Amino acid sequence: MAELELEHDKIIIGIDPGTNVMGYGILGIKGKTPSLIAMGVLKLNAMEDHYMRLHHIFERVTSLIAQYLPDEMAIEAPFFGKNVQSMLKLGRAQGVAMAAALNREIPITEYEPRKIKQAITGNGAASKEQVYTMLQRTLNIAQEDMPKFLDATDALAVALCHYYESQKPVFARGPKSWKSFIAQNPDRVKK
Amino acid sequence: MAELELEHDKIIIGIDPGTNVMGYGILGIKGKTPSLIAMGVLKLNAMEDHYMRLHHIFERVTSLIAQYLPDEMAIEAPFFGKNVQSMLKLGRAQGVAMAAALNREIPITEYEPRKIKQAITGNGAASKEQVYTMLQRTLNIAQEDMPKFLDATDALAVALCHYYESQKPVFARGPKSWKSFIAQNPDRVKK
Repeated sequence: MAELELEHDKIIIGIDPGTNVMGYGILGIKGKTPSLIAMGVLKLNAMEDHYMRLHHIFERVTSLIAQYLPDEMAIEAPFFGKNVQSMLKLGRAQGVAMAAALNREIPITEYEPRKIKQAITGNGAASKEQVYTMLQRTLNIAQEDMPKFLDATDALAVALCHYYESQKPVFARGPKSWKSFIAQNPDRVKK
Repeated sequence: MAELELEHDKIIIGIDPGTNVMGYGILGIKGKTPSLIAMGVLKLNAMEDHYMRLHHIFERVTSLIAQYLPDEMAIEAPFFGKNVQSMLKLGRAQGVAMAAALNREIPITEYEPRKIKQAITGNGAASKEQVYTMLQRTLNIAQEDMPKFLDATDALAVALCHYYESQKPVFARGPKSWKSFIAQNPDRVKK
């Protein structure tokens, strides 16, 4: 997969971590053009054991990183949930996915679902179908490839959202501290 | 550290994952005797960046596992929290600690704080000081070694709780073993 690195200026892995299904999308950037490298889902429903699910997420994200060598990770992270119980479980699923990235020193940025929809469609309350349609157009994905990956499009959307955000001038990204800028752009620090 | 493996029938790592301080305790079991191998804390307050904290937890737990080669992990896991926001953060901290164990195929068991206090002192509502005192007696820890590790005793307590639980016959995980009966009723032991 080393040729992927040569073909793209940047590779972004998008993750939509859930406790039942985890979606992933790998986006390649060449110049100003984002393109789909891969997407898919990890079905966790079949596994009853909570730790087995977490292990599976960690292993799969680790192997996706080894395979596609992404430069950055973008993760869909709702900041509000139904109850503390579901948030704890979601936090664990996010935590193991993040651990896989942190283990390889890959910087992580998280986005709220509303922010992702806004970035992709211009409407923070857009439906899943609208996001899906915009992704299909922007990335030139063949119609027949879309339906089987419906659960993965959220992950691809967060990767594309992250690319759009990285294209914005630094001063227009909202309130950011130098600390977080450096954390997000370690390669821009003179050593 | 290979000699630790030879010296003990089983090694348990206890983790108390917090977002400000993470405590750890390494317990060795030889025959029916638990003993302290190591304990300590990881102070995370100094790190402002949330991901840096998670990375630090993952790295430290990974290196503790590499150093002490534990057979099992026990983790303190409250099932209720103040709000969804804090539970999501706690879930992430737990998730990265768990990922370090799952990465080495180490089985994880989690215990509620109340259950741990019950197992160590016989009282689910025991104070931190009572837990501390019982741990000191049970594991013969020198008084002067205790205060500097106060934050770590919760982690050691969950490891000891896990050992007590594993000593119970499978058909009777409700009632207690003699060991935990004695631990819970120190006043009934003839001295």
